[in-house]
Amino acid sequence: MSPVVTPFDASLAVDPARLLNQCRWLLSQQVGLAVFGTNSEANSLAVSEKTALLDALLEGGIEPAWLLPGTGCCALPDTVALTRHAVSRGCAGVLMLPPFYYKGVSDDGLFASFSEVIQRVGDARLKIVLYHIPPVSGVGLSLELIERLLAAYPGTIAGIKDSGGAWRHTSAMLERGWDGFRIYAGSEAFLLKTMRAGGAGCISATANINPAAIARLRQNYRDTDAEARQAELNAVREVIMRYPMIPALKAVIAEGNGDPEWLRVRPPLVSLDEAQAKALSAELRAVGFSIARD
Amino acid sequence: MSPVVTPFDASLAVDPARLLNQCRWLLSQQVGLAVFGTNSEANSLAVSEKTALLDALLEGGIEPAWLLPGTGCCALPDTVALTRHAVSRGCAGVLMLPPFYYKGVSDDGLFASFSEVIQRVGDARLKIVLYHIPPVSGVGLSLELIERLLAAYPGTIAGIKDSGGAWRHTSAMLERGWDGFRIYAGSEAFLLKTMRAGGAGCISATANINPAAIARLRQNYRDTDAEARQAELNAVREVIMRYPMIPALKAVIAEGNGDPEWLRVRPPLVSLDEAQAKALSAELRAVGFSIARD
Repeated sequence: MSPVVTPFDASLAVDPARLLNQCRWLLSQQVGLAVFGTNSEANSLAVSEKTALLDALLEGGIEPAWLLPGTGCCALPDTVALTRHAVSRGCAGVLMLPPFYYKGVSDDGLFASFSEVIQRVGDARLKIVLYHIPPVSGVGLSLELIERLLAAYPGTIAGIKDSGGAWRHTSAMLERGWDGFRIYAGSEAFLLKTMRAGGAGCISATANINPAAIARLRQNYRDTDAEARQAELNAVREVIMRYPMIPALKAVIAEGNGDPEWLRVRPPLVSLDEAQAKALSAELRAVGFSIARD
Repeated sequence: MSPVVTPFDASLAVDPARLLNQCRWLLSQQVGLAVFGTNSEANSLAVSEKTALLDALLEGGIEPAWLLPGTGCCALPDTVALTRHAVSRGCAGVLMLPPFYYKGVSDDGLFASFSEVIQRVGDARLKIVLYHIPPVSGVGLSLELIERLLAAYPGTIAGIKDSGGAWRHTSAMLERGWDGFRIYAGSEAFLLKTMRAGGAGCISATANINPAAIARLRQNYRDTDAEARQAELNAVREVIMRYPMIPALKAVIAEGNGDPEWLRVRPPLVSLDEAQAKALSAELRAVGFSIARD
């Protein structure tokens, strides 16, 4: 899956038509839609912007079964509102950050947070993919917390996106073998390892620009050339990682689509300048990556 | 000033009547109202809850000149909405966090954030007290950023609350002597030092429970017994700091008011348990602090 980047118009308002276009292209590349993730600038969007965008995607013909919108906010009422909306629209599930303003909070407090959301939404269709990304959120999800949640809400706690960057944590979860719990690497750098250990795939920012190759490795991870395919993914990812991630993804999409509107980010992020965008483009071509879209 | 703690009812909804009561009491103790600060659990409240609470305080007779509501959110539209609302109601100013989800953002990006808010609010009455609290927000405000903002918006950038915990940073700002820029310590532990160096006072969580003594030291910091008064404030603060801050403040207010409703916090925070509340109370009495309110 891809945390789909969010396009903005000249007034920095969200641009539903371009988002729909990106979503359709990702689906055509066999990649699902984790809209409103970290790399979607989701936390730079108001609740009402996210509900309106989700509705625009559905009205544009995107099947809700392909959608895993991010719904975790700092404030309980916001998380409940977004989650309820996603469930009511039939989305496959939601990707849920813990409340992330207060740091050093206890597992008891985090358990209570997820619990309150689940109880307030009160819908058996709710499927939550937990979102572990302590380098950004500052609030991690321990194995003990996940086990408590699974025990209390076995039909609802459906999986986790592990963007902690530590294979040890992903691996420890995979070893637990929690029944029906889907473990997604937070980046395709860990895709092959994750698949070999029984994981579900990855939800990765770079899937915005390199979706087909990532989806192919997930599908064919048992092939003899899987290591070589992983190395190719890594080469592209390593280029992107030398730039600020979200502006870099948008620069590649802008070039690939011949559409500079895609360059915009909301503050506090800053777009790549022209020199950076050119250098990125040259570095990607040097590793054999094709920027132009069909 | 006090970042006024926010009371919740049994359904975890905000409780305007109890907040109004706490605000009136703080004003009677000569302490101003930085509602919706970190210790107000402001980031656990939805935008609509904050606008409604502010209106309830004004309808309850609180003068807007005593109010410095926190308005900084992750998402630009939310910060604009809250700031515009506070300005329209005549509040003395606003306390503004930078957008705090994305970490490692540049001064250019933070400048653009504050700039967008100021331009979108577009009201000469707007006075911003910047909110520097990197231990919680994860996003600090550099001296260079503050200078850029002051140069661009001299009538609007009115001061800073420095909750970084590093006297070096507060001191560096005080030494710059920026004209008309009000520097508030983020805790009364630095109150005397701040006042002696030309600062404006402090905005401190413990002012929720120890307001009169803090206000008195600010007023009388030139007195010969000021060091002794600072030591008394520190003794109370050091007790509180041995507990989770917000639950501890609420436990003291609950005991002081004989009103256990005050104990509630929103997840991810957790209330003190009975044993903790008793121990806190005993420790406070041991340093000569009187919990009961007049």
